[in-house]
Amino acid sequence: MKSHRQELWFNIPARRGFVNITREVAEAIRASGVQEGLVLVNAMHITASVFINDDEGGLHGDYEKWLEGLAPHEPVSQYLHNRTGEDNADAHPLALPARASVKRQVMGREVVVAITGGKLDLGPWEQIFYGEFDGRRRKRVLVKIIGE
Amino acid sequence: MKSHRQELWFNIPARRGFVNITREVAEAIRASGVQEGLVLVNAMHITASVFINDDEGGLHGDYEKWLEGLAPHEPVSQYLHNRTGEDNADAHPLALPARASVKRQVMGREVVVAITGGKLDLGPWEQIFYGEFDGRRRKRVLVKIIGE
Amino acid sequence: MKSHRQELWFNIPARRGFVNITREVAEAIRASGVQEGLVLVNAMHITASVFINDDEGGLHGDYEKWLEGLAPHEPVSQYLHNRTGEDNADAHPLALPARASVKRQVMGREVVVAITGGKLDLGPWEQIFYGEFDGRRRKRVLVKIIGE
Repeated sequence: MKSHRQELWFNIPARRGFVNITREVAEAIRASGVQEGLVLVNAMHITASVFINDDEGGLHGDYEKWLEGLAPHEPVSQYLHNRTGEDNADAHPLALPARASVKRQVMGREVVVAITGGKLDLGPWEQIFYGEFDGRRRKRVLVKIIGE
Repeated sequence: MKSHRQELWFNIPARRGFVNITREVAEAIRASGVQEGLVLVNAMHITASVFINDDEGGLHGDYEKWLEGLAPHEPVSQYLHNRTGEDNADAHPLALPARASVKRQVMGREVVVAITGGKLDLGPWEQIFYGEFDGRRRKRVLVKIIGE
Repeated sequence: MKSHRQELWFNIPARRGFVNITREVAEAIRASGVQEGLVLVNAMHITASVFINDDEGGLHGDYEKWLEGLAPHEPVSQYLHNRTGEDNADAHPLALPARASVKRQVMGREVVVAITGGKLDLGPWEQIFYGEFDGRRRKRVLVKIIGE
């Protein structure tokens, strides 16, 4: 069995953002030499997500709107997590906005994708995305590949 | 290490539907010859889901009702994705209804299940389902098995 | 390829509760002898969850509040699943509350985590949790490890 580990780093300049990382994951698979196996791609932070979707901007705008409806930014006072008076997560992980965390929960921490014939075995429109919900600092994604 | 790949095809006659696929996945495991390993079962379309639940009709009715509340079909104008004037996804993937995509996001793209002693290692009530949110055409699920 | 299977058992005295199980999963990895691989950790019941989050009480309070908003306990009559007149799940799995099941759907059944150098390859704040949504009885989590 072969295995391969790689980190992808991000520094999204806004609070929120979606980045297509399909090519980076495909390159990690090439580097691994694995022909048949599984790749795990996961955010390493509880305010970021890895998910699979179509690469279409209007759809991502809908996601942001829908997520905002599920876990609104205002008023922050409804979340216990914000009762320290802080609205950002820079100072201490405990002050990290709860709304970012619930958005990440809905969007998911990780995806597992099949590797077949040395390639990502995705559906015709599937692309892998990094979803940021509390940006403006360096964060990372883990790519772990096992197979043969 | 052994690996096995199989596709399951569906053509749900309605917009939405849930199908128990536990037996098909179990048969793929038998075909693989894997005794100890993991099976990944994932939808290959961004408007369909694979999830695990109890096989009970009332519960599925509740899911549909609850999902409809989270991501209502009407009014479609609230979603950017529908501003092309199209309400179905037949013409082009970009016109694909955003609400189907957010429902799939909540229900999940994939499950990973353990294989133990050559069998699906599920809890007593767990069953694997295909969830369709934009049917009336051929769509597919990937089953990928690795192990020994 | 090595594999290892272990069950973790719980009996949460309340209807809901979150338990940090990171140490138990790490111990299962040690017992497996796997240095490079994947660990699948999944609830074996459809009213319990395994998820990854920060280990911070205020955040968990926020989750409970947010989940309650998404799938409220009252009024139970809105769910078909409760129309048998039963409000608990003790008698029969079919009477199991739908709201517990939709909460579990949002929180997720399973996590897959990388194993690197014989250890859980988690981000700096990531911890693995068992989430109970219908407690007061014995339930279990499956830990399945594959790798080398």
